[in-house]
Amino acid sequence: MATNRLNEIWGEGRPAVNGWLGIASPFVAEIMAGQGYDSLTIDLQHGALDYSAMLPMLQAMRAFPVTPVVRVPWREPGIVMKALDAGAMAIICPMIDNGDQAAEFASYMRYPPRGTRSYGPTRAAFAHPGYGVAMNDEVLAFAMIETRAGLDNVEAIAATPGIDGLYVGPSDLALGTTDGRLAPGFDPTDPDLVASIRRIASVAKAHGKRAGLHCGAPDYAAEAIGWGFDLTTVSGDTRLLAAAASGTVSRWRELTGTRR
Amino acid sequence: MATNRLNEIWGEGRPAVNGWLGIASPFVAEIMAGQGYDSLTIDLQHGALDYSAMLPMLQAMRAFPVTPVVRVPWREPGIVMKALDAGAMAIICPMIDNGDQAAEFASYMRYPPRGTRSYGPTRAAFAHPGYGVAMNDEVLAFAMIETRAGLDNVEAIAATPGIDGLYVGPSDLALGTTDGRLAPGFDPTDPDLVASIRRIASVAKAHGKRAGLHCGAPDYAAEAIGWGFDLTTVSGDTRLLAAAASGTVSRWRELTGTRR
Amino acid sequence: MATNRLNEIWGEGRPAVNGWLGIASPFVAEIMAGQGYDSLTIDLQHGALDYSAMLPMLQAMRAFPVTPVVRVPWREPGIVMKALDAGAMAIICPMIDNGDQAAEFASYMRYPPRGTRSYGPTRAAFAHPGYGVAMNDEVLAFAMIETRAGLDNVEAIAATPGIDGLYVGPSDLALGTTDGRLAPGFDPTDPDLVASIRRIASVAKAHGKRAGLHCGAPDYAAEAIGWGFDLTTVSGDTRLLAAAASGTVSRWRELTGTRR
Amino acid sequence: MATNRLNEIWGEGRPAVNGWLGIASPFVAEIMAGQGYDSLTIDLQHGALDYSAMLPMLQAMRAFPVTPVVRVPWREPGIVMKALDAGAMAIICPMIDNGDQAAEFASYMRYPPRGTRSYGPTRAAFAHPGYGVAMNDEVLAFAMIETRAGLDNVEAIAATPGIDGLYVGPSDLALGTTDGRLAPGFDPTDPDLVASIRRIASVAKAHGKRAGLHCGAPDYAAEAIGWGFDLTTVSGDTRLLAAAASGTVSRWRELTGTRR
Amino acid sequence: MATNRLNEIWGEGRPAVNGWLGIASPFVAEIMAGQGYDSLTIDLQHGALDYSAMLPMLQAMRAFPVTPVVRVPWREPGIVMKALDAGAMAIICPMIDNGDQAAEFASYMRYPPRGTRSYGPTRAAFAHPGYGVAMNDEVLAFAMIETRAGLDNVEAIAATPGIDGLYVGPSDLALGTTDGRLAPGFDPTDPDLVASIRRIASVAKAHGKRAGLHCGAPDYAAEAIGWGFDLTTVSGDTRLLAAAASGTVSRWRELTGTRR
Amino acid sequence: MATNRLNEIWGEGRPAVNGWLGIASPFVAEIMAGQGYDSLTIDLQHGALDYSAMLPMLQAMRAFPVTPVVRVPWREPGIVMKALDAGAMAIICPMIDNGDQAAEFASYMRYPPRGTRSYGPTRAAFAHPGYGVAMNDEVLAFAMIETRAGLDNVEAIAATPGIDGLYVGPSDLALGTTDGRLAPGFDPTDPDLVASIRRIASVAKAHGKRAGLHCGAPDYAAEAIGWGFDLTTVSGDTRLLAAAASGTVSRWRELTGTRR
Repeated sequence: MATNRLNEIWGEGRPAVNGWLGIASPFVAEIMAGQGYDSLTIDLQHGALDYSAMLPMLQAMRAFPVTPVVRVPWREPGIVMKALDAGAMAIICPMIDNGDQAAEFASYMRYPPRGTRSYGPTRAAFAHPGYGVAMNDEVLAFAMIETRAGLDNVEAIAATPGIDGLYVGPSDLALGTTDGRLAPGFDPTDPDLVASIRRIASVAKAHGKRAGLHCGAPDYAAEAIGWGFDLTTVSGDTRLLAAAASGTVSRWRELTGTRR
Repeated sequence: MATNRLNEIWGEGRPAVNGWLGIASPFVAEIMAGQGYDSLTIDLQHGALDYSAMLPMLQAMRAFPVTPVVRVPWREPGIVMKALDAGAMAIICPMIDNGDQAAEFASYMRYPPRGTRSYGPTRAAFAHPGYGVAMNDEVLAFAMIETRAGLDNVEAIAATPGIDGLYVGPSDLALGTTDGRLAPGFDPTDPDLVASIRRIASVAKAHGKRAGLHCGAPDYAAEAIGWGFDLTTVSGDTRLLAAAASGTVSRWRELTGTRR
Repeated sequence: MATNRLNEIWGEGRPAVNGWLGIASPFVAEIMAGQGYDSLTIDLQHGALDYSAMLPMLQAMRAFPVTPVVRVPWREPGIVMKALDAGAMAIICPMIDNGDQAAEFASYMRYPPRGTRSYGPTRAAFAHPGYGVAMNDEVLAFAMIETRAGLDNVEAIAATPGIDGLYVGPSDLALGTTDGRLAPGFDPTDPDLVASIRRIASVAKAHGKRAGLHCGAPDYAAEAIGWGFDLTTVSGDTRLLAAAASGTVSRWRELTGTRR
Repeated sequence: MATNRLNEIWGEGRPAVNGWLGIASPFVAEIMAGQGYDSLTIDLQHGALDYSAMLPMLQAMRAFPVTPVVRVPWREPGIVMKALDAGAMAIICPMIDNGDQAAEFASYMRYPPRGTRSYGPTRAAFAHPGYGVAMNDEVLAFAMIETRAGLDNVEAIAATPGIDGLYVGPSDLALGTTDGRLAPGFDPTDPDLVASIRRIASVAKAHGKRAGLHCGAPDYAAEAIGWGFDLTTVSGDTRLLAAAASGTVSRWRELTGTRR
Repeated sequence: MATNRLNEIWGEGRPAVNGWLGIASPFVAEIMAGQGYDSLTIDLQHGALDYSAMLPMLQAMRAFPVTPVVRVPWREPGIVMKALDAGAMAIICPMIDNGDQAAEFASYMRYPPRGTRSYGPTRAAFAHPGYGVAMNDEVLAFAMIETRAGLDNVEAIAATPGIDGLYVGPSDLALGTTDGRLAPGFDPTDPDLVASIRRIASVAKAHGKRAGLHCGAPDYAAEAIGWGFDLTTVSGDTRLLAAAASGTVSRWRELTGTRR
Repeated sequence: MATNRLNEIWGEGRPAVNGWLGIASPFVAEIMAGQGYDSLTIDLQHGALDYSAMLPMLQAMRAFPVTPVVRVPWREPGIVMKALDAGAMAIICPMIDNGDQAAEFASYMRYPPRGTRSYGPTRAAFAHPGYGVAMNDEVLAFAMIETRAGLDNVEAIAATPGIDGLYVGPSDLALGTTDGRLAPGFDPTDPDLVASIRRIASVAKAHGKRAGLHCGAPDYAAEAIGWGFDLTTVSGDTRLLAAAASGTVSRWRELTGTRR
């Protein structure tokens, strides 16, 4: 039966590095899957793509030892189940504010009697031979903590059965908890925000759950692992491409003394 | 009427930097178009895309001051004309071996009586208001020199009316002219191959034509401009993305001491 | 005005055979539409497809005397109405647990004052000339009974005005009502589960509604018609294709004595 | 930073003309964007398209001085935020029945602390350089009034902070408020319905909000501007195309005396 | 077996009206197919589309009594045969200059021994039940006359066995035969060009072949039927849509006194 | 470096079973890739698909021990090289009539100095790590013998350096060599046609080349292996699906006594 590489890595006591996909392209997914990530997240929330783009991307990643993760646009059962049926082995759900919402999300992730997931793994059964009810033990549910309410209720969320981990996006956490004081951005250094981020990791660990953090640079990610994070996302396809191209052009203009 | 930015840049005595698109994604095209290139080439030959992917990519580039260029898969009139009708302002045609082939390619590029292009700029007329027969003066035809025959006949090719420039791909030139001695690759330093590359630029200039070179690194491109090249391609979307992602993961693994 | 073939068949006292589409391909839809089914269901819930794939599939089925049915991913008004606007003549809605949910779903299906469907049959008006408010009398709403709550409340669901039929998926019914005792699967023989399935048909008929059953084999379907089911689905595109291909290869290996 | 052309037009005291897109085609979007509209609305509710079609359509419109607007299928946070992240500068939300629903919708439109929009303008940041929290001041939220409840609560809806305007679809308003007396249709003349439409405009203006009306003919639209409407939609791609083609064929048949 | 509606119409002594499709959209194809045309031509040459767009467009047209025609990009066997395999019942081939080219094109259209078409009507066999070698008698081959050489050799082209008709595009004919004197455009009135157009029709009829003309307005088309043309194209999707939208906006601006 | 599974199988003295893909769907490709075939051929000639569909299909097959083969539409260098760049490990080229045509096709398949293939394995380099000039030894070129001329020149074709095998399609061979006597069809029994088929296999073996045959049923394929064929195609996706669905519906109608 299919197994989840993230569980294996964590079982060996290692942290995982996650890549991020916001471009609707199976070729981008295939290129990224070959660069050494442990998992790759297709971002249905803020990425410029939807289900129809996700499916061939999951197929293009299949040949690699990379756990396919999907961030859903919202806590809506239809898309959570569709992402699982398409072969995702982990789901990141945004904007979980409390234990009830966490329980709702968790229920969508597992087949009865553990949850309310509907049965019909159409592509998953072809993608992961042996797929069945036992996959309840392999899929992972990550709840995002990114609002004031979510932060206040982080204990209840972490304690929710079926929630396997907490995931933090610093931009939303800044906007959601600092009342306009901080601008959105990766790799924050504001002491209060860092304290919130570290607290989420600590609460997760206290409940035996995993913690994930969205980072911009590998150095920040490495530091976050020291804070207890098990999974760190390091940038993503759109930023990596734009930065690499922009840097190349700048260097060319500098060398040639040619303005735009 | 629409004008070709490459002509403007060259008219001002400046060289141009070209980007390369091999991923079938209008979002990749839009991202790349915003990074400061003077032109962007959609590669229908070796890129992982075809006409149906090219069209929305051309649309996504429209808002930018970037000349849309297309490299066609082969010297075939159907696709040359379709690329122009879709709004391309320049065409790069691979594997031109002699003056006759150059003349064939050139004829596809202009409306009669200058050439044999068929009239029907369906999208081009919406993309470039005022599009008409006068566009004969704006579009650019680049012939690729990449075989032994092409190199032997480079004078005749450069002299062909309607050929506006020569374009060099070092990988094919190495394979095509060194009888297996050199492996394909960017930014060659082999003296014979460099001599061939420089000769192509010189012949182009001697006939009042432009010269373009496919490069991997900005430093090599800058040097090539010194050899007389008017346009240098510096890497492309697939390589930029793969290298940026791979470097990020490597750095993360190094910092965290975590093997794959 | 457009009419619903399923209503005609049932009006003549005959049962209907339904096909199932989980592959995102208008050509698959066209092939399946030509094989003699009375209706074809595009499965937006567990099928590997979404709205963007569904639309050309509905177009490809148009030339055939086949009722286009859509199973929606969830009881969400947006997608129910979009499927109808795209030309679906019947909707199957999963996971209806009680009369209130049934009433919500039913309301999405008809124009006011009978329901809350919003007006704008953009493709439907081209697909079904004469489309208008009177289509309220042609479209069909099927509620799926597949949970313990749904089974307990089957009378209330069947009694809900605007619900035209009940539809049973044995896999989910097994998971949802047997507390882990039974594995998911088609064509069940467990006496308790069969009793539940037959009860749903009986309740539907008692309220003058239709009953549909998801089957794997024609023989089971034929038996189910004897239990009162009006519509039986018999397998679907993914299973039919996989089984046919697998059987062909096995036969070849057997005949040639060639292992994989 | 990007600005919203509709705000500029209204700031100069002029009304705006809006076009409507129901065909899933970036080329249709590009053609329509060049015909002089002030804004173009991609209709995810009744149009024959979804997110995956919308994205390249937004890209194809980018080069034009046209505000990109999206009508979402339903009051659901996922799609509202995805449309904004894709670069929409205004959202029209259907079926707002009361102030609570209006407040929910409004919250999805702005970043905290003004709302609950999640941060991640993946394509918007490339499409609108400088995109950030300050875009809260540029995007526009239109609530549709089209039910009996909506009409009854129009004051509360108009008064809702974050709602920038009301938008009226006469077909749904007829169905929703006349208890079956009136058929759906554009450009209504029924005195009661016209009174309802005019009342909505008046209430919007009384609360300092904008008012928009879906029209079929320019003459009706011009009259509606006299009633206080700031934005009028005049027909859309499907109707314009069908009418133009049908008229052409009819004229040909008349001239040639040729029946079908 | 499938029959060709154009043959039926002509067999009854009536002329046919053809529509033109340059937008890559099955919905546009379905809308256009419902407006009363006798045939619809998908333009793979100058239209903004290719094979992948053509296929669902052919499917969307299937339910209508409209002959599906395809104009291929060039006289290339691969695409001629693919268009036939996809279900096209007639092919228009551009830029036929002489009898040899006409014979080449004709050979691609019929199965041996009449021609060299390869057997494998994958979609055609599903689209046209009974499809087989006898379809040799139903498909139609139109050669375009649009160059000086083509006009000079029109007798030989018309005499070629397997060529069923000649088709004229006035824009290319003007460019190709007037040495720069006339600009491209529909519905020409220049006496020399009109004489050329009429001569093509006459030659076609003299050889018992059909004649088709690309027109912009129904009035011109009606006049052309008087010249002997059997099929007249009247405008196309892009022009119809742009003109209808532009006219609507202009009228609105005129009525409201609002400049852009 | 990537290796070709077909070479491995043949190296072990075993025949291979090939599947056939004519539906434009990566999910169909993934399903088929899991059914035990040794290779799968994407049919760009008669299949209802083109390059843009082929690419994600090749990606979806990557995880399986299945050699990806592509049949190109015609002997045209652009598409042969694009298919190889996309990751195909073997190419089947239709309608090879003589040794010159065979040599042309063979040249497109290998990099210089062995051939004229242009360098740029954009997707292939990501799909097959280590891809380079040495892949000249792994890719396979199959020439189809299906005309009278091809049969007459089969010795010369088989003798052509760079041609790795001959492939027979019985339908075209019947049409091309029996002057209308035989209808197209799979698994022929006509003695003359069988003799021609067997002769092709014999000639291939005499020149140390492979022989492939397109079959409909496993039994015929098994017999053909006895004639010396190394690779047999057994039916394909469209036929397998249609037959399986049709059989299911027929059985249901028989069991239920229900006419269409």
